[in-house]
Amino acid sequence: MEGSDKGRPIEHIQIKPYKREASYSYTLGAFPTYELILSKPELVYKVLMHSSYTDTDSLRTLCARYNIPLEMNDKLIGRLSDKNNCYVAGIFEKYSCELAKDSPHIVLVNPSNMGNLGTILRTIVGFGIYDIAIILPGADIFNPKSVRASMGALFKLNFQLFNSYDEYRKLYSKHDVFTFMINEEHTMNIKDCPKSKLFSLVFGNEARGLDDSFLNAGTSIMIPQTSDVDSLNLTIAVGIGVYEFTR
Amino acid sequence: MEGSDKGRPIEHIQIKPYKREASYSYTLGAFPTYELILSKPELVYKVLMHSSYTDTDSLRTLCARYNIPLEMNDKLIGRLSDKNNCYVAGIFEKYSCELAKDSPHIVLVNPSNMGNLGTILRTIVGFGIYDIAIILPGADIFNPKSVRASMGALFKLNFQLFNSYDEYRKLYSKHDVFTFMINEEHTMNIKDCPKSKLFSLVFGNEARGLDDSFLNAGTSIMIPQTSDVDSLNLTIAVGIGVYEFTR
Repeated sequence: MEGSDKGRPIEHIQIKPYKREASYSYTLGAFPTYELILSKPELVYKVLMHSSYTDTDSLRTLCARYNIPLEMNDKLIGRLSDKNNCYVAGIFEKYSCELAKDSPHIVLVNPSNMGNLGTILRTIVGFGIYDIAIILPGADIFNPKSVRASMGALFKLNFQLFNSYDEYRKLYSKHDVFTFMINEEHTMNIKDCPKSKLFSLVFGNEARGLDDSFLNAGTSIMIPQTSDVDSLNLTIAVGIGVYEFTR
Repeated sequence: MEGSDKGRPIEHIQIKPYKREASYSYTLGAFPTYELILSKPELVYKVLMHSSYTDTDSLRTLCARYNIPLEMNDKLIGRLSDKNNCYVAGIFEKYSCELAKDSPHIVLVNPSNMGNLGTILRTIVGFGIYDIAIILPGADIFNPKSVRASMGALFKLNFQLFNSYDEYRKLYSKHDVFTFMINEEHTMNIKDCPKSKLFSLVFGNEARGLDDSFLNAGTSIMIPQTSDVDSLNLTIAVGIGVYEFTR
Protein backbone atom coordinates (compact mmCIF):
# COMPACT_ATOMS: atom_id res chain seq x y z
CA MET A 1 0.00 0.00 0.00
CA GLU A 2 0.92 3.64 -0.06
CA GLY A 3 1.13 4.13 3.69
CA SER A 4 4.93 4.27 3.70
CA ASP A 5 4.94 7.46 1.67
CA LYS A 6 5.39 9.79 4.63
CA GLY A 7 5.91 12.86 2.49
CA ARG A 8 2.38 13.13 1.19
CA PRO A 9 -0.53 14.66 3.05
CA ILE A 10 -1.97 12.43 5.77
CA GLU A 11 -5.55 12.83 4.64
CA HIS A 12 -4.82 10.87 1.49
CA ILE A 13 -4.11 7.66 3.32
CA GLN A 14 -7.18 5.52 3.21
CA ILE A 15 -7.25 3.57 6.48
CA LYS A 16 -8.58 0.04 6.17
CA PRO A 17 -8.98 -2.84 8.61
CA TYR A 18 -5.57 -4.33 9.31
CA LYS A 19 -3.78 -6.71 6.97
CA ARG A 20 -0.41 -8.29 7.57
CA GLU A 21 1.01 -6.93 4.31
CA ALA A 22 -0.09 -3.35 5.01
CA SER A 23 2.60 -0.75 5.62
CA TYR A 24 0.77 0.72 8.61
CA SER A 25 -0.96 -0.59 11.72
CA TYR A 26 -2.76 1.01 14.66
CA THR A 27 -3.03 1.11 18.41
CA LEU A 28 -6.48 0.60 19.91
CA GLY A 29 -7.15 2.29 23.22
CA ALA A 30 -5.83 5.41 24.93
CA PHE A 31 -3.00 3.81 26.88
CA PRO A 32 -1.15 2.12 23.99
CA THR A 33 -1.76 5.20 21.82
CA TYR A 34 -0.06 7.42 24.40
CA GLU A 35 2.84 4.97 24.54
CA LEU A 36 3.08 5.05 20.75
CA ILE A 37 3.16 8.85 20.60
CA LEU A 38 5.71 9.16 23.39
CA SER A 39 8.01 6.43 22.03
CA LYS A 40 7.72 6.80 18.24
CA PRO A 41 6.15 10.20 17.46
CA GLU A 42 7.81 10.39 14.04
CA LEU A 43 5.93 7.27 12.89
CA VAL A 44 2.42 8.38 13.79
CA TYR A 45 0.27 9.37 10.79
CA LYS A 46 -2.68 10.48 12.82
CA VAL A 47 -4.65 9.90 15.99
CA LEU A 48 -8.36 9.13 15.99
CA MET A 49 -10.64 10.11 18.83
CA HIS A 50 -14.23 9.05 19.54
CA SER A 51 -16.72 11.82 20.27
CA SER A 52 -17.45 10.32 23.69
CA TYR A 53 -13.79 10.33 24.78
CA THR A 54 -13.51 12.48 27.89
CA ASP A 55 -9.82 13.21 28.45
CA THR A 56 -9.52 15.25 25.25
CA ASP A 57 -7.32 18.09 26.55
CA SER A 58 -4.26 16.02 27.30
CA LEU A 59 -4.59 14.13 24.02
CA ARG A 60 -4.86 17.41 22.07
CA THR A 61 -1.82 18.82 23.87
CA LEU A 62 0.25 15.71 23.22
CA CYS A 63 -0.64 15.56 19.52
CA ALA A 64 0.03 19.28 19.11
CA ARG A 65 3.45 18.90 20.73
CA TYR A 66 4.49 16.37 18.07
CA ASN A 67 2.54 17.91 15.17
CA ILE A 68 0.33 14.84 14.86
CA PRO A 69 -3.10 15.34 13.26
CA LEU A 70 -5.96 14.50 15.60
CA GLU A 71 -9.27 13.55 14.05
CA MET A 72 -12.65 12.90 15.61
CA ASN A 73 -14.02 9.95 13.67
CA ASP A 74 -16.43 7.60 15.45
CA LYS A 75 -17.13 5.62 12.32
CA LEU A 76 -13.51 4.81 11.53
CA ILE A 77 -12.70 3.86 15.14
CA GLY A 78 -15.72 1.58 15.10
CA ARG A 79 -14.51 -0.05 11.90
CA LEU A 80 -10.95 -0.60 13.15
CA SER A 81 -11.94 -1.95 16.56
CA ASP A 82 -14.19 -4.94 17.11
CA LYS A 83 -14.90 -3.83 20.67
CA ASN A 84 -17.25 -1.03 21.66
CA ASN A 85 -15.06 0.46 24.36
CA CYS A 86 -12.34 1.88 22.11
CA TYR A 87 -12.18 5.68 22.20
CA VAL A 88 -8.70 6.43 20.88
CA ALA A 89 -6.63 4.90 18.10
CA GLY A 90 -3.27 5.80 16.59
CA ILE A 91 -2.32 5.02 12.99
CA PHE A 92 1.41 4.44 12.60
CA GLU A 93 3.89 3.37 9.97
CA LYS A 94 5.41 -0.07 10.52
CA TYR A 95 9.16 -0.22 11.09
CA SER A 96 11.95 -2.67 11.59
CA CYS A 97 14.80 -2.81 14.11
CA GLU A 98 17.93 -4.74 14.98
CA LEU A 99 18.68 -6.36 18.29
CA ALA A 100 21.34 -4.92 20.58
CA LYS A 101 24.45 -7.12 20.38
CA ASP A 102 25.40 -6.70 24.03
CA SER A 103 22.03 -7.07 25.72
CA PRO A 104 20.12 -10.20 26.72
CA HIS A 105 17.62 -11.57 24.19
CA ILE A 106 14.37 -13.47 24.22
CA VAL A 107 13.91 -15.79 21.22
CA LEU A 108 10.41 -17.06 20.34
CA VAL A 109 10.36 -19.93 17.87
CA ASN A 110 7.11 -19.87 15.85
CA PRO A 111 4.84 -18.16 18.39
CA SER A 112 1.27 -18.60 17.14
CA ASN A 113 -0.97 -16.47 19.32
CA MET A 114 -1.04 -12.68 18.99
CA GLY A 115 -2.41 -12.11 22.48
CA ASN A 116 0.39 -14.23 23.96
CA LEU A 117 2.99 -12.40 21.87
CA GLY A 118 1.78 -9.01 23.08
CA THR A 119 1.65 -10.14 26.71
CA ILE A 120 5.20 -11.46 26.36
CA LEU A 121 6.40 -8.06 25.09
CA ARG A 122 4.77 -6.34 28.08
CA THR A 123 6.28 -8.85 30.48
CA ILE A 124 9.87 -8.76 29.26
CA VAL A 125 9.92 -4.95 29.19
CA GLY A 126 8.57 -5.07 32.75
CA PHE A 127 11.64 -7.10 33.70
CA GLY A 128 14.09 -4.94 31.76
CA ILE A 129 14.61 -7.03 28.61
CA TYR A 130 14.36 -4.90 25.47
CA ASP A 131 15.37 -7.27 22.65
CA ILE A 132 13.25 -10.05 21.17
CA ALA A 133 13.84 -12.30 18.17
CA ILE A 134 10.95 -14.03 16.43
CA ILE A 135 11.62 -17.10 14.32
CA LEU A 136 9.14 -17.30 11.43
CA PRO A 137 6.56 -18.46 10.72
CA GLY A 138 5.06 -16.70 13.69
CA ALA A 139 2.35 -14.36 14.89
CA ASP A 140 2.42 -10.83 13.45
CA ILE A 141 3.96 -8.46 16.00
CA PHE A 142 2.22 -5.50 14.32
CA ASN A 143 -1.25 -6.98 14.31
CA PRO A 144 -3.44 -4.63 16.41
CA LYS A 145 -4.18 -7.60 18.72
CA SER A 146 -0.46 -8.03 19.50
CA VAL A 147 -0.03 -4.27 19.87
CA ARG A 148 -3.00 -4.01 22.20
CA ALA A 149 -1.94 -6.96 24.39
CA SER A 150 1.53 -5.42 24.67
CA MET A 151 -0.05 -2.27 26.14
CA GLY A 152 2.40 -0.30 24.03
CA ALA A 153 5.51 -2.18 25.23
CA LEU A 154 6.13 -2.99 21.54
CA PHE A 155 7.29 0.59 21.04
CA LYS A 156 9.91 0.37 23.78
CA LEU A 157 11.85 -2.62 22.54
CA ASN A 158 13.83 -3.95 19.58
CA PHE A 159 12.41 -6.88 17.66
CA GLN A 160 13.91 -8.72 14.73
CA LEU A 161 12.42 -11.44 12.50
CA PHE A 162 14.40 -14.45 11.25
CA ASN A 163 13.60 -17.29 8.91
CA SER A 164 15.36 -19.83 11.11
CA TYR A 165 17.00 -20.16 14.48
CA ASP A 166 20.36 -20.67 12.73
CA GLU A 167 19.96 -17.33 10.97
CA TYR A 168 19.45 -15.67 14.35
CA ARG A 169 22.36 -17.50 15.91
CA LYS A 170 24.80 -16.60 13.13
CA LEU A 171 24.16 -12.93 13.74
CA TYR A 172 24.24 -13.11 17.54
CA SER A 173 26.81 -15.74 18.41
CA LYS A 174 28.17 -14.27 21.66
CA HIS A 175 25.10 -14.99 23.75
CA ASP A 176 24.86 -17.94 26.14
CA VAL A 177 21.84 -19.87 24.90
CA PHE A 178 19.27 -21.39 27.26
CA THR A 179 16.50 -23.45 25.68
CA PHE A 180 13.28 -24.00 27.61
CA MET A 181 12.20 -27.59 27.06
CA ILE A 182 8.92 -29.24 28.00
CA ASN A 183 10.29 -32.63 28.95
CA GLU A 184 12.57 -33.28 31.90
CA GLU A 185 15.14 -35.42 30.14
CA HIS A 186 18.57 -33.92 29.58
CA THR A 187 17.43 -30.64 31.11
CA MET A 188 18.42 -28.65 34.20
CA ASN A 189 16.01 -27.29 36.74
CA ILE A 190 15.88 -23.53 36.18
CA LYS A 191 16.56 -22.96 39.87
CA ASP A 192 19.86 -24.82 39.73
CA CYS A 193 21.00 -23.60 36.35
CA PRO A 194 24.01 -21.23 36.41
CA LYS A 195 22.85 -17.92 34.94
CA SER A 196 24.92 -15.65 32.74
CA LYS A 197 24.68 -11.94 31.97
CA LEU A 198 24.54 -12.08 28.18
CA PHE A 199 21.83 -14.67 27.67
CA SER A 200 19.38 -15.75 24.99
CA LEU A 201 16.30 -17.46 26.42
CA VAL A 202 14.71 -19.59 23.70
CA PHE A 203 11.04 -20.68 23.85
CA GLY A 204 9.03 -22.86 21.47
CA ASN A 205 5.55 -22.71 20.06
CA GLU A 206 2.46 -22.76 22.34
CA ALA A 207 1.32 -26.20 21.20
CA ARG A 208 4.57 -28.04 20.50
CA GLY A 209 7.32 -26.41 22.54
CA LEU A 210 10.87 -26.82 21.21
CA ASP A 211 11.76 -29.99 19.37
CA ASP A 212 14.66 -32.15 20.53
CA SER A 213 17.12 -30.56 18.09
CA PHE A 214 17.26 -27.66 20.56
CA LEU A 215 18.76 -29.94 23.21
CA ASN A 216 22.10 -29.24 21.52
CA ALA A 217 21.64 -25.51 21.01
CA GLY A 218 22.81 -24.53 24.48
CA THR A 219 21.90 -25.29 28.08
CA SER A 220 18.49 -26.97 28.19
CA ILE A 221 16.39 -26.02 31.15
CA MET A 222 12.90 -26.67 32.43
CA ILE A 223 10.60 -25.08 34.94
CA PRO A 224 9.56 -27.77 37.42
CA GLN A 225 5.81 -28.40 37.45
CA THR A 226 3.33 -30.97 38.71
CA SER A 227 2.08 -33.76 36.48
CA ASP A 228 -1.43 -32.36 36.90
CA VAL A 229 -0.98 -30.01 33.95
CA ASP A 230 0.13 -30.69 30.43
CA SER A 231 2.51 -27.72 30.46
CA LEU A 232 2.67 -24.12 31.55
CA ASN A 233 1.18 -21.47 29.29
CA LEU A 234 3.90 -19.92 27.08
CA THR A 235 3.54 -16.43 28.54
CA ILE A 236 3.92 -17.81 32.08
CA ALA A 237 7.02 -19.78 31.08
CA VAL A 238 8.59 -16.66 29.54
CA GLY A 239 7.62 -14.60 32.60
CA ILE A 240 9.26 -17.01 34.99
CA GLY A 241 12.31 -17.45 32.78
CA VAL A 242 12.86 -13.70 32.57
CA TYR A 243 12.14 -13.21 36.26
CA GLU A 244 14.65 -15.88 37.23
CA PHE A 245 17.40 -14.66 34.87
CA THR A 246 17.06 -11.02 35.94
CA ARG A 247 16.88 -11.64 39.69
CA MET B 1 -32.76 -25.34 34.66
CA GLU B 2 -33.33 -29.04 34.86
CA GLY B 3 -29.74 -30.08 34.37
CA SER B 4 -29.17 -30.90 38.01
CA ASP B 5 -31.66 -33.76 37.88
CA LYS B 6 -29.09 -36.46 37.36
CA GLY B 7 -31.61 -39.27 37.78
CA ARG B 8 -33.47 -38.71 34.57
CA PRO B 9 -32.37 -39.90 31.15
CA ILE B 10 -29.57 -37.83 29.64
CA GLU B 11 -31.31 -37.40 26.32
CA HIS B 12 -33.95 -35.18 27.92
CA ILE B 13 -31.51 -32.41 28.77
CA GLN B 14 -31.72 -29.77 26.12
CA ILE B 15 -28.24 -28.33 25.76
CA LYS B 16 -28.14 -24.61 25.06
CA PRO B 17 -25.35 -22.10 24.63
CA TYR B 18 -23.87 -21.34 28.04
CA LYS B 19 -25.45 -19.00 30.55
CA ARG B 20 -24.06 -18.15 33.97
CA GLU B 21 -27.24 -19.23 35.74
CA ALA B 22 -27.36 -22.62 34.00
CA SER B 23 -26.81 -25.73 36.11
CA TYR B 24 -24.43 -27.24 33.58
CA SER B 25 -21.45 -26.15 31.54
CA TYR B 26 -19.15 -27.81 29.01
CA THR B 27 -15.57 -28.42 28.05
CA LEU B 28 -14.56 -27.53 24.50
CA GLY B 29 -11.71 -29.55 23.02
CA ALA B 30 -10.39 -33.04 23.51
CA PHE B 31 -7.77 -32.27 26.15
CA PRO B 32 -10.01 -30.53 28.72
CA THR B 33 -12.74 -33.11 28.07
CA TYR B 34 -10.34 -35.95 28.91
CA GLU B 35 -9.34 -34.09 32.07
CA LEU B 36 -13.02 -33.67 32.97
CA ILE B 37 -13.80 -37.35 32.52
CA LEU B 38 -10.75 -38.50 34.44
CA SER B 39 -11.24 -36.05 37.34
CA LYS B 40 -15.03 -35.81 37.70
CA PRO B 41 -16.61 -38.73 35.80
CA GLU B 42 -19.72 -38.71 38.01
CA LEU B 43 -20.60 -35.19 36.86
CA VAL B 44 -20.45 -35.79 33.11
CA TYR B 45 -23.87 -35.92 31.42
CA LYS B 46 -22.55 -36.78 28.02
CA VAL B 47 -19.67 -36.34 25.62
CA LEU B 48 -20.11 -34.95 22.13
CA MET B 49 -17.88 -35.92 19.25
CA HIS B 50 -17.56 -34.35 15.79
CA SER B 51 -17.70 -36.71 12.81
CA SER B 52 -14.23 -35.62 11.70
CA TYR B 53 -12.60 -36.42 15.07
CA THR B 54 -9.92 -39.04 14.47
CA ASP B 55 -8.93 -40.48 17.86
CA THR B 56 -12.34 -42.05 18.42
CA ASP B 57 -11.21 -45.37 19.90
CA SER B 58 -9.64 -44.01 23.06
CA LEU B 59 -12.58 -41.63 23.61
CA ARG B 60 -15.06 -44.51 23.21
CA THR B 61 -13.09 -46.65 25.62
CA LEU B 62 -12.87 -43.92 28.22
CA CYS B 63 -16.59 -43.07 28.04
CA ALA B 64 -17.51 -46.75 28.23
CA ARG B 65 -15.36 -47.22 31.32
CA TYR B 66 -17.33 -44.54 33.18
CA ASN B 67 -20.73 -45.28 31.59
CA ILE B 68 -20.85 -41.86 29.94
CA PRO B 69 -23.02 -41.53 26.81
CA LEU B 70 -21.04 -40.54 23.73
CA GLU B 71 -22.90 -38.82 20.93
CA MET B 72 -21.80 -37.81 17.46
CA ASN B 73 -23.39 -34.41 16.91
CA ASP B 74 -21.64 -31.95 14.60
CA LYS B 75 -24.46 -29.45 14.77
CA LEU B 76 -24.52 -29.18 18.56
CA ILE B 77 -20.72 -28.92 18.83
CA GLY B 78 -20.83 -26.15 16.26
CA ARG B 79 -23.46 -24.32 18.24
CA LEU B 80 -21.62 -24.59 21.56
CA SER B 81 -18.22 -23.60 20.18
CA ASP B 82 -17.51 -20.37 18.34
CA LYS B 83 -14.35 -21.84 16.82
CA ASN B 84 -14.23 -24.29 13.95
CA ASN B 85 -11.52 -26.52 15.37
CA CYS B 86 -13.53 -28.06 18.22
CA TYR B 87 -14.06 -31.80 17.79
CA VAL B 88 -14.94 -32.96 21.29
CA ALA B 89 -17.06 -31.42 24.05
CA GLY B 90 -18.16 -32.67 27.46
CA ILE B 91 -21.38 -31.56 29.15
CA PHE B 92 -21.10 -31.59 32.93
CA GLU B 93 -23.06 -30.59 35.99
CA LYS B 94 -21.71 -27.59 37.87
CA TYR B 95 -20.55 -28.20 41.43
CA SER B 96 -19.20 -26.36 44.42
CA CYS B 97 -16.27 -27.09 46.74
CA GLU B 98 -14.61 -25.89 49.91
CA LEU B 99 -10.99 -24.93 50.27
CA ALA B 100 -8.60 -27.14 52.25
CA LYS B 101 -7.92 -25.50 55.62
CA ASP B 102 -4.30 -26.60 55.81
CA SER B 103 -3.12 -25.91 52.28
CA PRO B 104 -1.89 -22.66 50.71
CA HIS B 105 -4.52 -20.54 48.95
CA ILE B 106 -4.67 -18.12 46.07
CA VAL B 107 -7.26 -15.34 46.50
CA LEU B 108 -8.43 -13.37 43.47
CA VAL B 109 -10.35 -10.20 44.29
CA ASN B 110 -12.83 -9.39 41.48
CA PRO B 111 -11.02 -11.02 38.55
CA SER B 112 -12.73 -9.80 35.39
CA ASN B 113 -11.31 -11.79 32.48
CA MET B 114 -12.30 -15.42 31.91
CA GLY B 115 -9.22 -16.25 29.87
CA ASN B 116 -6.98 -14.89 32.63
CA LEU B 117 -8.91 -16.83 35.26
CA GLY B 118 -8.52 -20.09 33.36
CA THR B 119 -4.82 -19.50 32.74
CA ILE B 120 -4.36 -18.80 36.45
CA LEU B 121 -6.00 -22.13 37.34
CA ARG B 122 -3.66 -23.94 34.96
CA THR B 123 -0.66 -22.12 36.37
CA ILE B 124 -1.29 -22.65 40.06
CA VAL B 125 -2.01 -26.36 39.57
CA GLY B 126 1.26 -26.51 37.63
CA PHE B 127 3.02 -25.23 40.74
CA GLY B 128 1.13 -27.48 43.14
CA ILE B 129 -1.48 -25.08 44.55
CA TYR B 130 -4.93 -26.64 44.56
CA ASP B 131 -7.10 -24.10 46.40
CA ILE B 132 -8.39 -20.82 45.04
CA ALA B 133 -10.84 -18.28 46.49
CA ILE B 134 -12.68 -15.84 44.26
CA ILE B 135 -14.11 -12.66 45.76
CA LEU B 136 -17.26 -11.62 43.90
CA PRO B 137 -18.14 -9.92 41.67
CA GLY B 138 -15.81 -11.83 39.43
CA ALA B 139 -15.46 -13.79 36.21
CA ASP B 140 -17.47 -17.02 36.02
CA ILE B 141 -15.16 -19.97 36.70
CA PHE B 142 -17.58 -22.31 34.88
CA ASN B 143 -17.87 -20.25 31.72
CA PRO B 144 -16.58 -22.45 28.87
CA LYS B 145 -13.93 -19.79 28.17
CA SER B 146 -12.53 -20.12 31.69
CA VAL B 147 -12.74 -23.91 31.51
CA ARG B 148 -10.98 -23.98 28.15
CA ALA B 149 -8.18 -21.62 29.22
CA SER B 150 -7.64 -23.77 32.32
CA MET B 151 -7.00 -26.77 30.03
CA GLY B 152 -9.01 -28.82 32.52
CA ALA B 153 -7.04 -27.70 35.60
CA LEU B 154 -10.38 -26.49 36.99
CA PHE B 155 -11.31 -30.11 37.67
CA LYS B 156 -8.21 -30.74 39.77
CA LEU B 157 -8.58 -27.99 42.34
CA ASN B 158 -10.92 -26.61 44.97
CA PHE B 159 -12.49 -23.23 44.38
CA GLN B 160 -14.79 -21.27 46.65
CA LEU B 161 -16.73 -18.05 46.01
CA PHE B 162 -17.09 -15.28 48.60
CA ASN B 163 -19.02 -12.03 48.68
CA SER B 164 -16.16 -10.20 50.36
CA TYR B 165 -12.54 -10.67 51.39
CA ASP B 166 -13.63 -10.51 55.05
CA GLU B 167 -16.00 -13.41 54.49
CA TYR B 168 -13.08 -15.43 53.12
CA ARG B 169 -10.78 -14.40 55.95
CA LYS B 170 -13.27 -15.30 58.70
CA LEU B 171 -13.40 -18.84 57.42
CA TYR B 172 -9.67 -19.23 56.82
CA SER B 173 -7.97 -17.24 59.54
CA LYS B 174 -4.85 -19.37 60.07
CA HIS B 175 -3.16 -18.44 56.79
CA ASP B 176 -0.37 -15.87 56.57
CA VAL B 177 -1.71 -13.28 54.14
CA PHE B 178 0.44 -11.71 51.42
CA THR B 179 -1.17 -8.98 49.32
CA PHE B 180 0.28 -8.15 45.91
CA MET B 181 0.21 -4.39 45.50
CA ILE B 182 0.89 -2.36 42.38
CA ASN B 183 2.62 0.59 44.03
CA GLU B 184 5.95 0.38 45.82
CA GLU B 185 5.01 2.27 48.95
CA HIS B 186 4.76 0.28 52.18
CA THR B 187 5.50 -2.93 50.30
CA MET B 188 8.30 -5.49 50.41
CA ASN B 189 10.17 -6.77 47.39
CA ILE B 190 8.94 -10.33 46.79
CA LYS B 191 12.54 -11.55 46.71
CA ASP B 192 13.26 -10.30 50.23
CA CYS B 193 9.93 -11.18 51.76
CA PRO B 194 10.06 -14.01 54.33
CA LYS B 195 7.87 -16.82 52.98
CA SER B 196 5.68 -19.09 55.05
CA LYS B 197 4.23 -22.54 54.43
CA LEU B 198 0.55 -21.84 55.01
CA PHE B 199 0.07 -18.76 52.85
CA SER B 200 -2.73 -16.88 51.11
CA LEU B 201 -1.53 -14.88 48.13
CA VAL B 202 -4.06 -12.14 47.37
CA PHE B 203 -4.30 -10.47 43.95
CA GLY B 204 -6.54 -7.64 42.76
CA ASN B 205 -8.50 -6.97 39.61
CA GLU B 206 -6.75 -6.70 36.19
CA ALA B 207 -7.44 -2.98 35.81
CA ARG B 208 -7.29 -1.67 39.37
CA GLY B 209 -5.16 -4.04 41.43
CA LEU B 210 -5.84 -4.08 45.18
CA ASP B 211 -6.94 -0.88 46.86
CA ASP B 212 -4.97 0.55 49.78
CA SER B 213 -7.21 -1.07 52.38
CA PHE B 214 -5.31 -4.28 51.63
CA LEU B 215 -2.10 -2.71 52.94
CA ASN B 216 -3.34 -3.72 56.40
CA ALA B 217 -4.55 -7.20 55.47
CA GLY B 218 -1.15 -8.86 55.84
CA THR B 219 2.33 -8.49 54.41
CA SER B 220 2.18 -6.28 51.32
CA ILE B 221 4.57 -7.26 48.59
CA MET B 222 5.39 -6.20 45.05
CA ILE B 223 7.18 -7.71 42.12
CA PRO B 224 9.91 -5.29 41.04
CA GLN B 225 9.47 -4.03 37.47
CA THR B 226 10.73 -1.27 35.22
CA SER B 227 8.88 2.01 34.82
CA ASP B 228 8.48 1.17 31.12
CA VAL B 229 5.27 -0.75 31.75
CA ASP B 230 2.14 0.24 33.60
CA SER B 231 2.02 -3.08 35.47
CA LEU B 232 2.48 -6.77 34.90
CA ASN B 233 -0.40 -8.76 33.47
CA LEU B 234 -2.40 -10.41 36.29
CA THR B 235 -1.64 -13.96 35.16
CA ILE B 236 2.09 -13.20 35.09
CA ALA B 237 1.95 -11.68 38.58
CA VAL B 238 0.16 -14.78 39.92
CA GLY B 239 2.61 -17.05 38.10
CA ILE B 240 5.62 -15.34 39.63
CA GLY B 241 4.02 -15.14 43.07
CA VAL B 242 3.26 -18.84 43.10
CA TYR B 243 6.65 -19.75 41.64
CA GLU B 244 8.46 -17.72 44.30
CA PHE B 245 6.38 -19.04 47.21
CA THR B 246 6.73 -22.69 46.16
CA ARG B 247 10.46 -22.60 45.39
